[in-house]
Amino acid sequence: MPNAAYRRLKTRFARIATLGEAASMLHWDASAMMPPGGGAARGEQLAALAGLSHELLTAPIVAEDLEIATAEGPWEETNLALMVRTHARATALPTELVEASARANSACEKIWREAKAQADFARVAPALAEVVRLQRETAQALAAALSMDPYDALMDGYQRGVTAADVEPVFAAYEAFLAEALPRAEAIQAARPVALPLPGPFPVAAQRDLCARLSARIGLDYGHARLDESLHPFCGGTPTDVRITTFYDEQDVAKAMLGVLHETGHALYERGLPAAFARQPVGEAAGMAAHESQSLIVEMQACRSDAFLGFLGGELRAAFGGDAAAYAPGNLARHWRRVERGFIRVDADEITYPAHVILRFRLERAMIQGTLEVADLPGAWNEGMQRMLGITPPDDTKGCLQDIHWHDGAFGYFPSYTLGAMAAAQLMKAARAAEPGLDAALAQGDMAPLLSWLRVHVHGKGSLLGFQDLLRAATGRPLDPQDFMDHLRARYLDA
Amino acid sequence: MPNAAYRRLKTRFARIATLGEAASMLHWDASAMMPPGGGAARGEQLAALAGLSHELLTAPIVAEDLEIATAEGPWEETNLALMVRTHARATALPTELVEASARANSACEKIWREAKAQADFARVAPALAEVVRLQRETAQALAAALSMDPYDALMDGYQRGVTAADVEPVFAAYEAFLAEALPRAEAIQAARPVALPLPGPFPVAAQRDLCARLSARIGLDYGHARLDESLHPFCGGTPTDVRITTFYDEQDVAKAMLGVLHETGHALYERGLPAAFARQPVGEAAGMAAHESQSLIVEMQACRSDAFLGFLGGELRAAFGGDAAAYAPGNLARHWRRVERGFIRVDADEITYPAHVILRFRLERAMIQGTLEVADLPGAWNEGMQRMLGITPPDDTKGCLQDIHWHDGAFGYFPSYTLGAMAAAQLMKAARAAEPGLDAALAQGDMAPLLSWLRVHVHGKGSLLGFQDLLRAATGRPLDPQDFMDHLRARYLDA
Repeated sequence: MPNAAYRRLKTRFARIATLGEAASMLHWDASAMMPPGGGAARGEQLAALAGLSHELLTAPIVAEDLEIATAEGPWEETNLALMVRTHARATALPTELVEASARANSACEKIWREAKAQADFARVAPALAEVVRLQRETAQALAAALSMDPYDALMDGYQRGVTAADVEPVFAAYEAFLAEALPRAEAIQAARPVALPLPGPFPVAAQRDLCARLSARIGLDYGHARLDESLHPFCGGTPTDVRITTFYDEQDVAKAMLGVLHETGHALYERGLPAAFARQPVGEAAGMAAHESQSLIVEMQACRSDAFLGFLGGELRAAFGGDAAAYAPGNLARHWRRVERGFIRVDADEITYPAHVILRFRLERAMIQGTLEVADLPGAWNEGMQRMLGITPPDDTKGCLQDIHWHDGAFGYFPSYTLGAMAAAQLMKAARAAEPGLDAALAQGDMAPLLSWLRVHVHGKGSLLGFQDLLRAATGRPLDPQDFMDHLRARYLDA
Repeated sequence: MPNAAYRRLKTRFARIATLGEAASMLHWDASAMMPPGGGAARGEQLAALAGLSHELLTAPIVAEDLEIATAEGPWEETNLALMVRTHARATALPTELVEASARANSACEKIWREAKAQADFARVAPALAEVVRLQRETAQALAAALSMDPYDALMDGYQRGVTAADVEPVFAAYEAFLAEALPRAEAIQAARPVALPLPGPFPVAAQRDLCARLSARIGLDYGHARLDESLHPFCGGTPTDVRITTFYDEQDVAKAMLGVLHETGHALYERGLPAAFARQPVGEAAGMAAHESQSLIVEMQACRSDAFLGFLGGELRAAFGGDAAAYAPGNLARHWRRVERGFIRVDADEITYPAHVILRFRLERAMIQGTLEVADLPGAWNEGMQRMLGITPPDDTKGCLQDIHWHDGAFGYFPSYTLGAMAAAQLMKAARAAEPGLDAALAQGDMAPLLSWLRVHVHGKGSLLGFQDLLRAATGRPLDPQDFMDHLRARYLDA
């Protein structure tokens, strides 16, 4: 009875996903609520859930059922295929390797915090070398099981079906664009009047109200969501109970506000996933690049548009008072669309951000391929920064020590940021073409035309399509950096 | 290798306890944080955790290991004995009975909410009859497995080792005391001047600060705890991350403040459990009556004492301002130690509260024994209230519909409240004898002498001893209602 096998698999994957929901809530709690003394026990709780999930996924009956199960129709067929893939990834790695990696990542991450504080790369280099060694082993084991290139096998864990061969030409095209666009954008910016300062400070309580109101306004239903505070903003929880966080700075309203709009983009994606396939692989978000496209289409494409800045200025002035000129859209753009060559990825503007990602993509790929040694990382980093942005970090804290990712064993993730940014521009162009009233609505703070288009073409698709097919179905083309470059030209070069 | 078996069991029970911690956090979140739309998914998450815990506990290897495991020393021996008991309770019930009960409880609880709102017992009677039928079946199955009386087997699930034979004489003695003490207390109270009103309203933010400060002052370490809000106050979380909640009423500062002191008593117990046996049965709290003794020794014995009320008055005046006379300990006592015959258990004073419990104990025992039909419950209830407190509820909402417990399938729990109140008095007497400076410290808001005694004699014992042995070791006697009656005499009759 093949269908009985598929039904058993659906029940089992739903159970695994339900444990994942529990873990997601406990992660949120750890970041937003937990007193410091709860940390050790929380680690045990999350480890127990992860261990049980792994046992459920790798039990012998799963392989047997996957062998004989059949499914009908595109959703169920894709669901079964995704189960096969999930199972293959979970069973590809020997337990000792998984455990050795977890230990090495955890040890390296701790040392990294000290090394970063002291700008002392040598201090973390041995631990990072061990992380890289185990990541290479992991990549090779996954590659063998999935018949893929090793680096692609790592990237596949974050964004299914996207390979280095997809990424390379896209990044090369962007690099060429950057060389010409960045100096021009800087020159145009320099010729403009300086920005009027925004009146501050911005009391936290008023910021909190504003952030909750704005996120609700653009579509987040607080019957199924919460907004809280954490050191590093994120979007967590589950599709029916999504938890976003932010961090308030009394001196700078933009940090929390634009951050909340960004996380709201993630949250709206989760909220829009197909409920009929909740807790099934096909009902999940389509990957990290797809997820980033949804936060960036909201934050960068929609909320930093001239149209929405007009609306936002009125909201800010109503919340905090002060001179109308400071809140004029042109002045807000001068603050929030400012281009600047900087060392730090998370502070980068839209134009230079991809340079940070391209650098990391090339370096991490070389480390996994074995053509770059950890000891040579700082030099390679600084050389890349000089080549791409014409600046050299004064120390490694502003260079190769700035991000947690590698030091925590995350290799293959970085490309998602820029793939997401590019996909956001491509989707926005298609949405604008399909919804002619989109910008007029944004000027009123109304995201409904954009959101209803995204619900149909992205959110509601879950994981039915891979990243490239999702873009193809929604925009007629696979990922194409042209729309992103056009967007940057229009916003930064043609004005 | 018997010791290998015991080690395996310890690992497994630790895993089960860790899942229980996760569930406890999710329960807290559901009450204190979760948006309403998260309810359905949360139910699934908790059900998945409960199901996995049950599977871990009832796997065939557990019975095999329990058969051959040996342990050395009192802690490990008791731990093994508690594993046997936990396993026996879990395996005594057929899965169909557990599931039928869960469904019946859930269905009845929903109908009860409507029936209570409309004072319509007939509406819930059929559903409650089904709950009782399944509870009787459950009691009989447990009784057979544990060689116990059926009602005792239910009570044993809440407070290990306490039987109806322990409870009956204690409750009978109290009933006799009540008949004489209640009218006297009322007469003494009537002869006193009326209480000066407390100046209100009490802004919620100031109440929140006060509650956090007071609970910290009496020993709760907020590096391992949180205080939040929920509709029904409770203490949840885990020993290293305990979560207490309260509910603020702007008109009445006592509700939240005394409630937080009560929950702090529960929290201090959890915080003081033996860390060396964390996540093992012997490291858990000794049962619900023991737990209630710890909340009541803090709230009723310590915090409503003349000594502590003196300290509290100063704190309240500092927080809310107003006339010093209103905050004098005698006036606070007139508010917070007021005796009144009422219909509602949760609003009852120290003297009449046991009457509510004794009534419920007799009625629920009769329902489990089959000598009281659900249809006859309202009549039996009203008759009991009339006999014990001389009042008859005007309707069933103020009578047998007031509590959720039975309608949610909790039979055998009610005695814990009064056993806890009595144990609290007995422990307080022993603590006072051992720590002569206890009351002088309370007058300064200093709970350290009491707390350090409780840490040694109650908290640190975990489940090493059953309820009666715990009291015997701490006070020289098993539960004896005399100390509680002496306490009430001193507080309400001798003044």
